[in-house]
Amino acid sequence: MTNFSDPTHQRHVFSVLVSDEPGVLARVIGLFSGRGYNIESLAVANVDAEAGLSRITIVSTGTPMILEQIEAQLNRIVPVRKVVDITREGPTIERETALVKVKGDGPQRMEALKVAEAAGAVSRDASPEAFVFEITGTPGGIDGFVGLMRPLGLIEVVRSGVLGLSRGAKSA
Amino acid sequence: MTNFSDPTHQRHVFSVLVSDEPGVLARVIGLFSGRGYNIESLAVANVDAEAGLSRITIVSTGTPMILEQIEAQLNRIVPVRKVVDITREGPTIERETALVKVKGDGPQRMEALKVAEAAGAVSRDASPEAFVFEITGTPGGIDGFVGLMRPLGLIEVVRSGVLGLSRGAKSA
Repeated sequence: MTNFSDPTHQRHVFSVLVSDEPGVLARVIGLFSGRGYNIESLAVANVDAEAGLSRITIVSTGTPMILEQIEAQLNRIVPVRKVVDITREGPTIERETALVKVKGDGPQRMEALKVAEAAGAVSRDASPEAFVFEITGTPGGIDGFVGLMRPLGLIEVVRSGVLGLSRGAKSA
Repeated sequence: MTNFSDPTHQRHVFSVLVSDEPGVLARVIGLFSGRGYNIESLAVANVDAEAGLSRITIVSTGTPMILEQIEAQLNRIVPVRKVVDITREGPTIERETALVKVKGDGPQRMEALKVAEAAGAVSRDASPEAFVFEITGTPGGIDGFVGLMRPLGLIEVVRSGVLGLSRGAKSA
């Protein structure tokens, strides 16, 4: 959750498939915090209930050496089934979703609605007091949308963090 | 990342606003793993770079007493600015996004494309070998879509975990 502007630092997306065992998420995150590795975003959810598998998507930044260490260390955690550095694998798809609550009772109400429509956001709740917009896009696109809504009565934002997959048929 | 069928267990969405300090995510997750509290999904991302704030959305299940303990314990972690049990607050919006990779070279190619279209999924990558569909919906809706794709050549799934907001103008 830190942004680096150091040019030697790269930003990589790791996809980590784990067995659903108690404490596995704590171990994965402990690996980062214990060694001072940065976590820019993280998303985890069950992806195969029958097989008891969850996937953790982690965006981290660091020097190429640190990023290699992260991958190697993740592979040593026992309930970790598979680690893929998606960024290193080649072309990727990176998407993120946000819910953005904006005041709906001011003079900027119409402007917020028109800007949201133009940005491809969808309203998921509309009350006389507020709107909740849902937007899915690139992480930079979400930044842009939040920036547009800020002067129009932004109340709050919740973001998923990056979801990543390699292009083509490869399995991460 | 465990599913409870115990009827005394409820499923709640917590929204936790934290200062971007090293180790804060590890402390929040350590609270769950240390006490054996369940994490069904978790998403964390920066929501205000200028103010140095990130928001963690955690879905947990437990008895009403355990869920109250979780909220109280989260509030004791210093870099935690605000904890809201969204589920207790009243009507909520719960949304999730998934990227779903499906084989594109078999006889079921047309079926996968038509089913995805009907489900409101959008193709984010198309190659002769595979498609990547993006779908945003309720967590149950995502489960349904993955179930539809499974017999049509599912390669892999990545999910954001639940994003939650209260309806109306309240700030979580």
